[in-house]
Amino acid sequence: MDQRISAVTLGVKDLQASRKFYVDGLGWKPVFENREIVFFQAGGMVFALFLRDQLAADFGGDPATFGRAPMSLAYNVRTKSEVNPLMQRAEAAGAKILDPAGDKSWGGCSGYFADPDGFAWEIAWNPAWPMAADGSVEFGAGA
Amino acid sequence: MDQRISAVTLGVKDLQASRKFYVDGLGWKPVFENREIVFFQAGGMVFALFLRDQLAADFGGDPATFGRAPMSLAYNVRTKSEVNPLMQRAEAAGAKILDPAGDKSWGGCSGYFADPDGFAWEIAWNPAWPMAADGSVEFGAGA
Repeated sequence: MDQRISAVTLGVKDLQASRKFYVDGLGWKPVFENREIVFFQAGGMVFALFLRDQLAADFGGDPATFGRAPMSLAYNVRTKSEVNPLMQRAEAAGAKILDPAGDKSWGGCSGYFADPDGFAWEIAWNPAWPMAADGSVEFGAGA
Repeated sequence: MDQRISAVTLGVKDLQASRKFYVDGLGWKPVFENREIVFFQAGGMVFALFLRDQLAADFGGDPATFGRAPMSLAYNVRTKSEVNPLMQRAEAAGAKILDPAGDKSWGGCSGYFADPDGFAWEIAWNPAWPMAADGSVEFGAGA
């Protein structure tokens, strides 16, 4: 088995509200969408927003067991100066700031915001994870 | 803002149980680990297993609000024949099968399993998302 994640699908309560956040707010461009799902090409993977109940039906989950997801997604940037403007852009788009951008003990700078469904996104500058031209990162290959 | 996900971090209750599933069960190789976190290089991104309470502290979340995550991760494969063996491997490693591998209305074949913390993984063969040599996928570029 190789090591990869081909897609991340977030179950959302209100697809139009989520679409507005990611598309109008953050500027992401869908590659396909209908009334149930919005797909984005995200580097070499796919990111999807899918109606929660439909996702639950897809994997046989009971929506009553859903809670805040104990997980986070990170969006890394090339320079420290990119972190705060992206946090501000997310906040302007309606995100709740969970942790303001700041220097971290691990040597980088990051902050967290929550998307409309409470999913935690970290905007991070991590000098230890150099970023290639295509946006991919390599763990621990940097400074 | 580009479109990418640099890291996916799952909050786990028992790091050693999760490590055992991904490392001993699925055969993934950590690139770094300590008592709180295990990192894997996953294609051009990083996948991490992090103690739930530590992750919650990191983004200012209240662990009491955590529930089953309304999201899924997908691992795509190149051929249909790879789906079932990977589902069986996951089950042998202790995964709960949420939806057995089968042909889907969208033209591919997939199944879902839950990891030790209930995170839903889809093993998918999707002919509409061709896979490059490096494992990256492109939405809708295929058949």
